[in-house]
Amino acid sequence: MSFFPASLEKLIEKFASLPGIGLKSAQRLAFHVLSLSDADAADFASAITEAKSKVHACRICQNLTDREICSICASPNRDPSTVCVVADPKDVAAIERAREYRGRYHVLHGVISPLNHVGPDDIRIKELVERVSDGGVEEIIMGTNPDTEGETTAKYVSRLLKPFGVKVTRFAYGIPVGASLEFADDATLMRALEGRQEI
Amino acid sequence: MSFFPASLEKLIEKFASLPGIGLKSAQRLAFHVLSLSDADAADFASAITEAKSKVHACRICQNLTDREICSICASPNRDPSTVCVVADPKDVAAIERAREYRGRYHVLHGVISPLNHVGPDDIRIKELVERVSDGGVEEIIMGTNPDTEGETTAKYVSRLLKPFGVKVTRFAYGIPVGASLEFADDATLMRALEGRQEI
Repeated sequence: MSFFPASLEKLIEKFASLPGIGLKSAQRLAFHVLSLSDADAADFASAITEAKSKVHACRICQNLTDREICSICASPNRDPSTVCVVADPKDVAAIERAREYRGRYHVLHGVISPLNHVGPDDIRIKELVERVSDGGVEEIIMGTNPDTEGETTAKYVSRLLKPFGVKVTRFAYGIPVGASLEFADDATLMRALEGRQEI
Repeated sequence: MSFFPASLEKLIEKFASLPGIGLKSAQRLAFHVLSLSDADAADFASAITEAKSKVHACRICQNLTDREICSICASPNRDPSTVCVVADPKDVAAIERAREYRGRYHVLHGVISPLNHVGPDDIRIKELVERVSDGGVEEIIMGTNPDTEGETTAKYVSRLLKPFGVKVTRFAYGIPVGASLEFADDATLMRALEGRQEI
């Protein structure tokens, strides 16, 4: 049974349908929206429709953009011969924050995950293969997460791309900067040992 | 610096402006909205504008409604001589859930809180006094929270209403049903003792 007006109940329901938002939080958010000025509420609503209608995948790298080609692919300062392959647009944002990488990206929009019924055809691998076969790419850096699904995806993609004669590399594994050996897990320690470098 | 398209950044910003939503959650929510179908996203946006434009305060009890008079005030089954005064529409919902109370409500939309610069004129006390002075109300039940601000508000309102000859009562204090004495705080235990009843 509902104790709020129908249109308020509907808004609560909409918020509650978002990931990680329970009923109490949804109520709190809906009441907050009611407390906004008319202009601010209209602004919020239009932000949703605008983002939804304008944002789409870049024709080249599949990253999210509101232009035809994203700002990274369109930039003359980014090296087109190096392509970092990531699972998600958020990973692009994370790597860009480090201000170190000068190549381009390819966003897969997912990883191969048989348990979740995601196969190679469900993510943007085909687009990557086309891009490499068009030429101009010399190195592919696999930047998928170092978990089972990310590893599987990296292996699968590298096997597909090897015939094109591109170099396929992987992000280094090791102890995170600032972390202590004491708290590193066994798998990370093992990889850090394997990947040791002369100083 | 922003690493997402402008319209996506704006949506993230909007979500992050909601209470209790941090930047990471806002990103998660914005990406979720992008993953919705066009129809679902439009539905979400219209839920915001609809709720904002339709929901307003009931002319009689100040509770939120999308009609002129809320369903409780409009119901012939609710006793108009008993009015429960609460701080918030959520309190009405909580009391209604108990399915016990058959009177009506008055929603103050806040409590007197000098620390937050909320005085008696900033909440709907004037409307309550008018309602009582119009006659027909015999008992006012103060249902504000049992904290300092709720108590202050209850005392202030009862002093204002006493001259009209209405009975002003307060929710009982005591051990919550199902709780154990061991974990009750001192103030609650003291009030529970004071309010002890013969069995």
